[in-house]
Amino acid sequence: MNHHKDRIYLDYNATSPLSSSVKEWASEEFEVFANPSSIHTQGKATKRCIRGVSSTLYKVFGLDNQDFDLVYHSGASEGANSFFKGKALDLLNQGIKPTFVYSPTDHSCIRKQKDFFDIFNCQSVALPLSSSGKVDIASSLNLFKTIDEPILLNWTWVNNETGLVQNLKELEFLKSLDAKKVWVHIDAVQSVGKVKNWNRLGDFFDAITFSGHKFGTLKGIGFSFYKKDLKLFPLIDGGEQQAGRRSGTENIHGILSIAKAIQDVLEFNLEQTYEIKQKFEYELEKVLGSEGEIILRDQERSSNTTFFILKKFDSQAVSMSLDLEGFDISNGSACSSGAVTPSHVLLSLGYNEKQAKSAIRVSFPPNISRDFYLSFKDRFFNVIKRFC
Amino acid sequence: MNHHKDRIYLDYNATSPLSSSVKEWASEEFEVFANPSSIHTQGKATKRCIRGVSSTLYKVFGLDNQDFDLVYHSGASEGANSFFKGKALDLLNQGIKPTFVYSPTDHSCIRKQKDFFDIFNCQSVALPLSSSGKVDIASSLNLFKTIDEPILLNWTWVNNETGLVQNLKELEFLKSLDAKKVWVHIDAVQSVGKVKNWNRLGDFFDAITFSGHKFGTLKGIGFSFYKKDLKLFPLIDGGEQQAGRRSGTENIHGILSIAKAIQDVLEFNLEQTYEIKQKFEYELEKVLGSEGEIILRDQERSSNTTFFILKKFDSQAVSMSLDLEGFDISNGSACSSGAVTPSHVLLSLGYNEKQAKSAIRVSFPPNISRDFYLSFKDRFFNVIKRFC
Repeated sequence: MNHHKDRIYLDYNATSPLSSSVKEWASEEFEVFANPSSIHTQGKATKRCIRGVSSTLYKVFGLDNQDFDLVYHSGASEGANSFFKGKALDLLNQGIKPTFVYSPTDHSCIRKQKDFFDIFNCQSVALPLSSSGKVDIASSLNLFKTIDEPILLNWTWVNNETGLVQNLKELEFLKSLDAKKVWVHIDAVQSVGKVKNWNRLGDFFDAITFSGHKFGTLKGIGFSFYKKDLKLFPLIDGGEQQAGRRSGTENIHGILSIAKAIQDVLEFNLEQTYEIKQKFEYELEKVLGSEGEIILRDQERSSNTTFFILKKFDSQAVSMSLDLEGFDISNGSACSSGAVTPSHVLLSLGYNEKQAKSAIRVSFPPNISRDFYLSFKDRFFNVIKRFC
Repeated sequence: MNHHKDRIYLDYNATSPLSSSVKEWASEEFEVFANPSSIHTQGKATKRCIRGVSSTLYKVFGLDNQDFDLVYHSGASEGANSFFKGKALDLLNQGIKPTFVYSPTDHSCIRKQKDFFDIFNCQSVALPLSSSGKVDIASSLNLFKTIDEPILLNWTWVNNETGLVQNLKELEFLKSLDAKKVWVHIDAVQSVGKVKNWNRLGDFFDAITFSGHKFGTLKGIGFSFYKKDLKLFPLIDGGEQQAGRRSGTENIHGILSIAKAIQDVLEFNLEQTYEIKQKFEYELEKVLGSEGEIILRDQERSSNTTFFILKKFDSQAVSMSLDLEGFDISNGSACSSGAVTPSHVLLSLGYNEKQAKSAIRVSFPPNISRDFYLSFKDRFFNVIKRFC
């Protein structure tokens, strides 16, 4: 489960080690290498491998290949950019200016799309949030009424920092109100193996994007499902691989690793992870007392994520102390190029800058065992006590 | 060298098997996995690994990290799209409309950019070619004089089908005439280990793009060097990894595999590959007689590529026969999603549609040994004889 034997890696929302099946498989299956567009025997063999993985993924997520295209790409950042830039370019090409609607707690690969919409004087609007961090549906409906242009809407299923789960049913409701002018993209990066029914998606959305490295595949691979009739201008254009939706030679090694890793995820014991996290948060609260707070404690959150603040300390002091004790954990979002900036999620939830700089994220392996938890918990709380 | 023991893979321009060093390394080094943006110990370890690879690549290509940024991406299709769309968006954002200039023999990931420029009513212009397939410099100069807008110019160093080498000195000359308004992108996908001085680039260009899987890395990884002052709007925007030039968690496994594979390439015996191809083409011409032709026979071409036509036969018949005898070779470009369409390169060189559908591409391993060549040559020519 851990990599450097003397270190406790609790940063699974940043990235995951290779799943055990991927590691076992890697050395053998690297024999498959040919270009699946090649019509020779080895090219066809690669093509068959990819079809096999695709068929697994349609099955795992309960989707029909008559309704959805499955497109492989380099990861969720590319997936999100491909949807928003791709749909915007498709509409701009028809002389239509869309409005970009997102949540202030979304990952930066979503929020950053605003810069692109700005170039073409397209509006970007943030969804209203309630104090629970969830999207306020009534206010969102009112907001939608004020927008005349077609809407490109992002919906982050599970927040990468807090683990907060946004309800897909509510999204389905928003979409159903005006199906013709709201295009919905679901960011499902933090959902796989971490929330109940992570693979029961329904079929109401236009696009959904997954990242492989968050659940143990090789790095540099992700995938999206697109409604068949969803027209996007291809962000990466060229040889027209993948039915022209995403050009470039397919990453066969990455694709094969998805099938392996997702098979492992299907065997995760989600209930057990929830239960261990319950215990962890119960003890953590006792240690924190009035000196800290678990963010969105009573909300529905992912099985593996605990986000907390220590009122009097910068997160860097805490994370360095944890690091010295062998813990790899994250402060704020791990994806911000190493810089310790205030958590934009906490700022959006109304916390002040000092609080937003004091946040520690623990993201457990989603298949955590009780023995593993017991092996480090005392050491962990001993560090936290120093700051309380 | 070959994968399925009973098959002869001669399609190295489509993709390459993993280099031997990559395979050896894979099972051990997969222990490195953390997110290099994470500030914990394991994140820093990943960051150090990436720095090591970058330092190797600057050294191998004789470039200075004071002058050029090195950016990792998912491969050459992404690299090319990032340059052309990225520079166009940067200019459009300033109210400037650029002109896209390419060669008709360029790979589709270049030519397809025209669709993007069309959206914004930006001009796309093809470079004039001489009968040798090389860019006609005198005519190009005249063409440049007629263009008032800034130029985004692509230059394919080595053609993927014919292996034709375009001279970088000529490009340097074109660029030097009006450095302020011509931005130059070099497509160097087919150059690594296949032409003399493949790693002596000079430093006059604005961007150069490489693909890993063409020289034995894991799939799904490539890299570009960008002049420090080259401003591009990021095609994949988000967490601002890689100094904001390309967001998304870095593909650490792919990146590490570049360092391994390029070390193998440095040991290739280029002279020997040229010599073996000479022998092959000499014998091939004897077999073809008046029934076929080696394309651009007398031009400077890459060490491993032979492109030929059989006057009376569709390439599919020939390639299927070769396939049955165990040869994996390509007809036309391998990157066109499995469809056998006429080679756009041959059409651009003035061949007719029938001829352009009869093309066979043999691309040898760039580190071919004499023994390997002798092991298959008779079998190969026996198949070709059936069509002559």
